[in-house]
Amino acid sequence: MLGLVFDGSLNVRVDLPEPVRGEGEALVSVRVAGVCDTDLQIVRGYMGFRGVLGHEFVGEVLASDDPKWLGVRVVADINAGCGVCEDCTTRDGHHCASRTVLGIAGRAGAMAERLVIPERNLVAVPAGLSDRSAVFAEPLAAAIHVLDVLEPGTRRVAVVGDGKLGLLLCAVLRSHDLDVTLVGHHADKLALAEALGVQTRTDVQGMERSFEAVVEASGNRTGLAASMTLVAPRGTIVLKTTVGSAYDIDLASLVIDEVRVVGSRCGDVRQAVAMLEAGGVDPGPWVEAVYPLSQAVQAMEHAGRRGARKVLVTNE
Amino acid sequence: MLGLVFDGSLNVRVDLPEPVRGEGEALVSVRVAGVCDTDLQIVRGYMGFRGVLGHEFVGEVLASDDPKWLGVRVVADINAGCGVCEDCTTRDGHHCASRTVLGIAGRAGAMAERLVIPERNLVAVPAGLSDRSAVFAEPLAAAIHVLDVLEPGTRRVAVVGDGKLGLLLCAVLRSHDLDVTLVGHHADKLALAEALGVQTRTDVQGMERSFEAVVEASGNRTGLAASMTLVAPRGTIVLKTTVGSAYDIDLASLVIDEVRVVGSRCGDVRQAVAMLEAGGVDPGPWVEAVYPLSQAVQAMEHAGRRGARKVLVTNE
Repeated sequence: MLGLVFDGSLNVRVDLPEPVRGEGEALVSVRVAGVCDTDLQIVRGYMGFRGVLGHEFVGEVLASDDPKWLGVRVVADINAGCGVCEDCTTRDGHHCASRTVLGIAGRAGAMAERLVIPERNLVAVPAGLSDRSAVFAEPLAAAIHVLDVLEPGTRRVAVVGDGKLGLLLCAVLRSHDLDVTLVGHHADKLALAEALGVQTRTDVQGMERSFEAVVEASGNRTGLAASMTLVAPRGTIVLKTTVGSAYDIDLASLVIDEVRVVGSRCGDVRQAVAMLEAGGVDPGPWVEAVYPLSQAVQAMEHAGRRGARKVLVTNE
Repeated sequence: MLGLVFDGSLNVRVDLPEPVRGEGEALVSVRVAGVCDTDLQIVRGYMGFRGVLGHEFVGEVLASDDPKWLGVRVVADINAGCGVCEDCTTRDGHHCASRTVLGIAGRAGAMAERLVIPERNLVAVPAGLSDRSAVFAEPLAAAIHVLDVLEPGTRRVAVVGDGKLGLLLCAVLRSHDLDVTLVGHHADKLALAEALGVQTRTDVQGMERSFEAVVEASGNRTGLAASMTLVAPRGTIVLKTTVGSAYDIDLASLVIDEVRVVGSRCGDVRQAVAMLEAGGVDPGPWVEAVYPLSQAVQAMEHAGRRGARKVLVTNE
């Protein structure tokens, strides 16, 4: 099988073993996969993951225990919990201690011809939704999940970082009619945000410490300190960036200003599909390039360029 | 006037100017003051404060606009807000942008013969409560304030750091019947905690990542990383330590485990007095030494010794 493997170096291989479907799992033929900053972080050492990269995908079910899934176009929750622990049975299994995570931890990912994922993770893609939109379901869910930790009554939100996630965050927050300011460095992305009714800034310098919430999505180690200069006393910083290295940061103002810093990871893919279907978010303009799977190394290289928007990898 | 001044070096001075009472302020004769780790941090550069140190005190009102306070034995909220901004009028003024803070920011502190503080900050000390107990009202309020940010249903809490605040936290959490584990290094303090029904450990090594909440009160830069090894996924770390220097820390697990880190500073002194009066907390055994004000430098030195319990400074 063809796929993109990270094993210390990054290579497309043609001789990958077929993924083996376990009980309750679906074998999925990947149609399109998206490159996420987390993939780039993994190559820099994050999570110590080795294997097929990729966790954003749209595919078609080739085999499953439950016949209702056969032939269905799907996206999926990437967290595959044990299914029996308290987190799996009472919540979403995103914190199951023995979970695997597609292309991130213990499970071969989506930048390959085929993958396996538990059937309970699958979400059907409505006919009207293109692959190119549906592939945003996973990162969009991560953006929507930020809403779960905002304090009731939040009005003014800053987003730090105009990367791929930053734009999705702007779209989600604007769709909830919040007053949003994006801090970023890339004119083309700031323009996309402005079209959503977002105010934009290129620097935190001169901005007031006045935002009830700040979403830190910069993807680098300076984002938290920048966020701390923007958040109002008793405000919330939602931390989205996972950096595979240490911060050097003075945290005294978190205590003095009684700020909450809330880590936020994956969201509900079902909600994201519904939002895409309803047209609440249209990520089409955010796709910058599409590469065939055989050129996935180049896709990764492209996605890693400063200011790159979404890069897709396709099997078609 | 006699008092302990930090102006780059630490000295008791006899020639301090009398504090001048502004409108709505009370002039208070200090009976007893407590030494807090924050005082020690200030001497190391925290907050850049220069002036009379000290913010934990019991005193007697010598002069006030409102005659009802004259001669009353009092403690006080140390945050003196402007009284007119939104934070002051709708909340407690603890985050008023133009606040002063007794002995910490812009206002001469309590390790002196006299101080001034707004009358609205005063809390009368009930007759049955000794100075030696009442002087704990301010730090006890800070401990009680942790309860405000625990998630409903929290049962298992770890306290990291067996300093003065760590013991108060144990007492407060136990008084709410929580299952508390204290991590510390000092046998005498761990024994005091055990008498409160607290489980104790001398090292986070071997402890499970299983606490719904962890209160970081270590007073040093290693406490947050230790707390991160104890907090369960989706759990809360309450950050109490203010360190006047930078952390070097990997924060990725906050995102992966979706942990909340909540800064927590001052609490409601009224609640603390009520708790002391009700006998819910008895801090008497935590006093290690009492120095006259003229020996306040020695009191600070004593309080800074590794493992020291509460040191008081008295005017009597």
